[in-house]
Amino acid sequence: MGARVPGAPAVPRFLDMTWPEVAALPAGTVAVLPLGAVEQHGPHLPVSTDLVTASEVSAAAVEAVTQAGTASLVLLEPLAYTKSDEHAGFPGTVWLSWDTLMRVLVDVGRSLAASGIERLVFVNGHGGNSALGQVANRELRRRFGLRTFFAHVSTPRDQGGAPVAAGEHGLGVHGGHSETSLMLHLRPELVHLDLAERRVPEDLLVHERIGFGKPVSFGWLSSDFGPDGHVGDPTTATAEQGKVLFEHAVAELAATLVEASTFTTPADGAAGLDPRDRG
Amino acid sequence: MGARVPGAPAVPRFLDMTWPEVAALPAGTVAVLPLGAVEQHGPHLPVSTDLVTASEVSAAAVEAVTQAGTASLVLLEPLAYTKSDEHAGFPGTVWLSWDTLMRVLVDVGRSLAASGIERLVFVNGHGGNSALGQVANRELRRRFGLRTFFAHVSTPRDQGGAPVAAGEHGLGVHGGHSETSLMLHLRPELVHLDLAERRVPEDLLVHERIGFGKPVSFGWLSSDFGPDGHVGDPTTATAEQGKVLFEHAVAELAATLVEASTFTTPADGAAGLDPRDRG
Amino acid sequence: MGARVPGAPAVPRFLDMTWPEVAALPAGTVAVLPLGAVEQHGPHLPVSTDLVTASEVSAAAVEAVTQAGTASLVLLEPLAYTKSDEHAGFPGTVWLSWDTLMRVLVDVGRSLAASGIERLVFVNGHGGNSALGQVANRELRRRFGLRTFFAHVSTPRDQGGAPVAAGEHGLGVHGGHSETSLMLHLRPELVHLDLAERRVPEDLLVHERIGFGKPVSFGWLSSDFGPDGHVGDPTTATAEQGKVLFEHAVAELAATLVEASTFTTPADGAAGLDPRDRG
Amino acid sequence: MGARVPGAPAVPRFLDMTWPEVAALPAGTVAVLPLGAVEQHGPHLPVSTDLVTASEVSAAAVEAVTQAGTASLVLLEPLAYTKSDEHAGFPGTVWLSWDTLMRVLVDVGRSLAASGIERLVFVNGHGGNSALGQVANRELRRRFGLRTFFAHVSTPRDQGGAPVAAGEHGLGVHGGHSETSLMLHLRPELVHLDLAERRVPEDLLVHERIGFGKPVSFGWLSSDFGPDGHVGDPTTATAEQGKVLFEHAVAELAATLVEASTFTTPADGAAGLDPRDRG
Amino acid sequence: MGARVPGAPAVPRFLDMTWPEVAALPAGTVAVLPLGAVEQHGPHLPVSTDLVTASEVSAAAVEAVTQAGTASLVLLEPLAYTKSDEHAGFPGTVWLSWDTLMRVLVDVGRSLAASGIERLVFVNGHGGNSALGQVANRELRRRFGLRTFFAHVSTPRDQGGAPVAAGEHGLGVHGGHSETSLMLHLRPELVHLDLAERRVPEDLLVHERIGFGKPVSFGWLSSDFGPDGHVGDPTTATAEQGKVLFEHAVAELAATLVEASTFTTPADGAAGLDPRDRG
Amino acid sequence: MGARVPGAPAVPRFLDMTWPEVAALPAGTVAVLPLGAVEQHGPHLPVSTDLVTASEVSAAAVEAVTQAGTASLVLLEPLAYTKSDEHAGFPGTVWLSWDTLMRVLVDVGRSLAASGIERLVFVNGHGGNSALGQVANRELRRRFGLRTFFAHVSTPRDQGGAPVAAGEHGLGVHGGHSETSLMLHLRPELVHLDLAERRVPEDLLVHERIGFGKPVSFGWLSSDFGPDGHVGDPTTATAEQGKVLFEHAVAELAATLVEASTFTTPADGAAGLDPRDRG
Repeated sequence: MGARVPGAPAVPRFLDMTWPEVAALPAGTVAVLPLGAVEQHGPHLPVSTDLVTASEVSAAAVEAVTQAGTASLVLLEPLAYTKSDEHAGFPGTVWLSWDTLMRVLVDVGRSLAASGIERLVFVNGHGGNSALGQVANRELRRRFGLRTFFAHVSTPRDQGGAPVAAGEHGLGVHGGHSETSLMLHLRPELVHLDLAERRVPEDLLVHERIGFGKPVSFGWLSSDFGPDGHVGDPTTATAEQGKVLFEHAVAELAATLVEASTFTTPADGAAGLDPRDRG
Repeated sequence: MGARVPGAPAVPRFLDMTWPEVAALPAGTVAVLPLGAVEQHGPHLPVSTDLVTASEVSAAAVEAVTQAGTASLVLLEPLAYTKSDEHAGFPGTVWLSWDTLMRVLVDVGRSLAASGIERLVFVNGHGGNSALGQVANRELRRRFGLRTFFAHVSTPRDQGGAPVAAGEHGLGVHGGHSETSLMLHLRPELVHLDLAERRVPEDLLVHERIGFGKPVSFGWLSSDFGPDGHVGDPTTATAEQGKVLFEHAVAELAATLVEASTFTTPADGAAGLDPRDRG
Repeated sequence: MGARVPGAPAVPRFLDMTWPEVAALPAGTVAVLPLGAVEQHGPHLPVSTDLVTASEVSAAAVEAVTQAGTASLVLLEPLAYTKSDEHAGFPGTVWLSWDTLMRVLVDVGRSLAASGIERLVFVNGHGGNSALGQVANRELRRRFGLRTFFAHVSTPRDQGGAPVAAGEHGLGVHGGHSETSLMLHLRPELVHLDLAERRVPEDLLVHERIGFGKPVSFGWLSSDFGPDGHVGDPTTATAEQGKVLFEHAVAELAATLVEASTFTTPADGAAGLDPRDRG
Repeated sequence: MGARVPGAPAVPRFLDMTWPEVAALPAGTVAVLPLGAVEQHGPHLPVSTDLVTASEVSAAAVEAVTQAGTASLVLLEPLAYTKSDEHAGFPGTVWLSWDTLMRVLVDVGRSLAASGIERLVFVNGHGGNSALGQVANRELRRRFGLRTFFAHVSTPRDQGGAPVAAGEHGLGVHGGHSETSLMLHLRPELVHLDLAERRVPEDLLVHERIGFGKPVSFGWLSSDFGPDGHVGDPTTATAEQGKVLFEHAVAELAATLVEASTFTTPADGAAGLDPRDRG
Repeated sequence: MGARVPGAPAVPRFLDMTWPEVAALPAGTVAVLPLGAVEQHGPHLPVSTDLVTASEVSAAAVEAVTQAGTASLVLLEPLAYTKSDEHAGFPGTVWLSWDTLMRVLVDVGRSLAASGIERLVFVNGHGGNSALGQVANRELRRRFGLRTFFAHVSTPRDQGGAPVAAGEHGLGVHGGHSETSLMLHLRPELVHLDLAERRVPEDLLVHERIGFGKPVSFGWLSSDFGPDGHVGDPTTATAEQGKVLFEHAVAELAATLVEASTFTTPADGAAGLDPRDRG
Repeated sequence: MGARVPGAPAVPRFLDMTWPEVAALPAGTVAVLPLGAVEQHGPHLPVSTDLVTASEVSAAAVEAVTQAGTASLVLLEPLAYTKSDEHAGFPGTVWLSWDTLMRVLVDVGRSLAASGIERLVFVNGHGGNSALGQVANRELRRRFGLRTFFAHVSTPRDQGGAPVAAGEHGLGVHGGHSETSLMLHLRPELVHLDLAERRVPEDLLVHERIGFGKPVSFGWLSSDFGPDGHVGDPTTATAEQGKVLFEHAVAELAATLVEASTFTTPADGAAGLDPRDRG
């Protein structure tokens, strides 16, 4: 990246810039867009959980890379409201339909491309966004030529992530040990650990093919697992474990952002598309 | 409203609540949704200007009312990205199309209604959202029975607001004296007053019928007024003026929120709609 | 405008022209599109009220300007069916949803632009169209480069218009003194004054911030005010008052049309838009 | 139908009614919706041609049936702007896309059903609407239970109608002998017969399977036939022929309307649909 | 067409080709897209009936023409699921809404145009697709410049086809004598002739204007005719009659395909469209 | 499942059934929907590759389970045309946009639910459908209460599948060793092994975070990797390897289908959803 101005803020935020400053971002600058959620997370966690984790991990990683001077980055304001349809049955869930969120992602990507941004990393804090994010990843590449990347804060189990609490048997997909630990580290005042109860659907373990983290996914609602809303075991969560998870996530994302700043493919397939194919 | 718990946070934020806490909000609670924008504001103001003003005014007004105990309120996370199509030609503008924003507003309203919320106040910081916000106001009333209200942070001139800088002749609609003053009060470190120049399209004054704040509106882009992006005179802005504007806006919004908490109409027309009319 | 042919019809109607005649319209010709409505107007007025007023005022103003030779105009066939969702609960209301009407406005504007028309004035007879009309105003400017204008036949109270009947306290927004007077002047045979009753929701007056013509709008349905459908006091209406209102509206619109024919901005922002921004 | 009030207007117009009058329409009343077009019709006919013919035939037929007292009818305001995409390349064509028009038709049908109307006849003056009108016919039946009918003013050749001018060889599909004759009868002052030229694409006659009025239709634009816009031979048109065509069309439509007022099927399939099937 | 390679498959299938083989198709090659349906066909026929007939007729006609060397053709994989909304009330019907099917047809046409295909023939086996297919025919012509054609396997009675069983009085529109005969010829093992019953709605014959094959169409559901689902008389069907119908349909389609391969219009109207008109 | 009728077809196909047969399917019957693609697969494989593999694996697995009598299954006609936008730049690719495919999946799921089907397994042959399929999985669960499952024929590398050819370094994502082997087993006459070349983008291996099968996905087009279209090494493919892969895939899918027939969750969350949440 180009020379950083001494005294520049540690986290270069898109929101803080004027339009000429955006226009002057170095070629190759990577825009970072956290994807949160506003959705029920059981009786013990705030509805902002995924927004908090995506925002905090993104800010810390952007700061670290910017400090190191290893890539030119700019942090976008997160999307707070996303696709939380699996939690539709619970008060506190504010969810966009699949087509609404997709249109938002396309509009944001279009705007960034028209602003001269060429690289975009989504940092996703909500597993329910992963699939549609992949669709957007490609749509923005094809239509606007953006180089797009989709990263996870802490990959949920049904997206291929690793379990961290053995007692959850890989079933801690929402509001369980990991998320609760992260929030104990990041927002302890918002965690009601006294209300946390173990909700691990162990009956799922009898299946070999279908299930969280198994080869065949199933369409689930959180209300398929009972009236509480979370799926996992928050009772074992600790702030210390949360700190470890957080620092690990920040380090991983920092590495991702550096890679994204120079990532290329053998050809630039978007450049030669027929306008009809760009659609 | 019901008795407030001593020691509760001054600003009750939806994000901080668990879903049972949302479910337990008193009947009549007013949800407050700030509408910001991420869009060019000339060379002297950050792209976040409308988001900052909507968020800050909303938070201060919610806090004031909550402290006074005159209404039960809950503050929602702002919408950062909205309909800034009039600034489409400038880097730094991230805009949603009319149908994308409308879908977002409908999805958010639907979710709030399903969460048991019955009253919603939009607090709009971006004049370009005013028209579509009115459309959403009614749509949410008809389809979901929400009592909806649309308030402005500081009414832009073409929406009926009053000019505060005589030298702008009522033409300071974007990044002019008022907005710059507000930002000097709220985020002085982000204001580049040295780059501010007077950009007042005085030729518009020859028209009696058409123009900002006149009976006939016209479809304009900020690039219709030149390459800088702002329309108005930021050079006269001061933090002191901004403080006055801010406190005035907070007081007005606080009064609005109290009114909204008990506002009724002679009948409840949404209750009796044919499902086909709810559409 | 160019020389008018003696004997040409007083009202140049788009419908009456052949396609080569449309193609030959002088540069700068202003197209005038009345926006009506087909919706309940209480037991005393026909559902066509807004269509009648928009059409009659438009035709008279176009005729006056054309006679005077002060601008080249062409009158389009009105849109009869528009966004009357606030009256959805009543038989006789034929309403388009927000997205249907918006698509119609975009398609009409696109067609006019492709026909060589560069200026378009909406003349709106129905308050419920005002907001979406503003959205269309800008959309057509950005996407097709049209110079667009949005004018009101007689501005309803919640859009900033002035009350004319003191006894209505500014609450005569639908089927009240003004509209009834206009119809007594224009279509006396369709007015059932014997069925007219005073329906003024005076309870709204206790609010300072929220209400018709006040800073904060609210999402309302006409059924929120009772089973009759109108809001205002038609009992005081007279044909004489209607004549005054009509002639005033015609004079105002005539002035608007002349202004619209030469209205410019310092730059032509639509000309330089990135195709992605035109979107 | 019930007893008609002596002195009632010969043509019962929906527009002229108040909402209680609409609510009081007898069960079985047939609503009649003319579908016009605003589109190029060659250098000799106005762009309103299809709107004029649909409106005039509808009004005359509604009047005749109402006078005879053989059915209860109500005439709706025509749709002026419809799907004229085949004439997109010509100034003067104002066209709605397929999805816009379909949404309009659905919204109008939904509104009528919610108003208590149970029967709807489309009277189509523009061949380009025929196909989508069939789609709407069924959509309104399934979703709203309306009994719907789709009738043609004068069936264009590619929709199965009969040629009336032998010299056109069945190729007078747009602005030819028939339409020009009808307009010479209905609006002689708008017909520029001096500019009419024969434009019959006789090369099409070599095909046995594909063509106007043949078993296989083809996707055509009027610009596929040359720069003038019409397809047919207007030079042979006469007002006398137009009068014959008009009276024939009126008589046919009158018969249709009477049939539509009592038409039934063995069962009411819409009544028992699963809500998911009504979709 | 160019020289065919000896030994090439009798039916050139798009599916069997590699992309360079598609790219190398001769200019003027006609793509053939069968449109089937998956929908109830009464208790005696499989839900695949329309898919079977469209596929088999298409394949046989493509083979015949290819053998004869009279045109260059390529057979596309049929669309199995289409617009069967008239059969929505019956298990076994899998139907796309009008907008879904239209989008599919547009996407397929766009893809073919981008692949270098210039001519496309739809071969429709399901009457319920005819109207929307006409809309697609034109949309693909206008937007992508494709030469499009819409042919019927065996034209249903309400689309202008001829009745073949006198006892059906032209009312055998679904699952009647003709379709059952065709299936007895093509898939005898799937026909349950023992369950076939006569279901001819003879009451419709009293109408002169409205009905199947009459000038005025009506919006019908198959459940409007009773609980069985078919409309017609399958009891008279025979495999011999099916063979005659099939061979007739193949011969007609073969003739159509040859015509389509050279069909031209006097001008190429799509070539000169304004991009806004291509829309 | 209930008793199977001796002599029933080995593969129970939805297409072959009458509607009463569909209505009579046992409760718990699992519908199986193969998702194919029609898209370029390099110069050596036909565009039908993914359709062939999905169809063949599905049919074989359905047959095996049906023979074993371990579950009641019904095989649906595959979707041939799906979301192949990553191959948009190549002739032979026929692709649906994300919203078109999503609407198709929703319409099919809605129809199956209305037909009494309660369980649906997607069997996906095209990696580009995986993400949107996950979205549909949940949408159908929430809106229609279907129990949905998403299975892969042979999981592509970027979806978590295992590489089978060491020399591809996990980069054989499209038209490489595995797919070519499968096609050599299933359709040897359509494979042009003489045209197969090694196209392994080994430069991607330098990245640790971003890439096929790595934690961070990237939005790619096949044209990003060069002009040939495939990504992988087909030169090592053999029919023997294809047979092993096929039999493995069939066995896995058979196990999946049996599991899907009895899979439950602790609660039925879809049953209690607010209609607004069902959306």
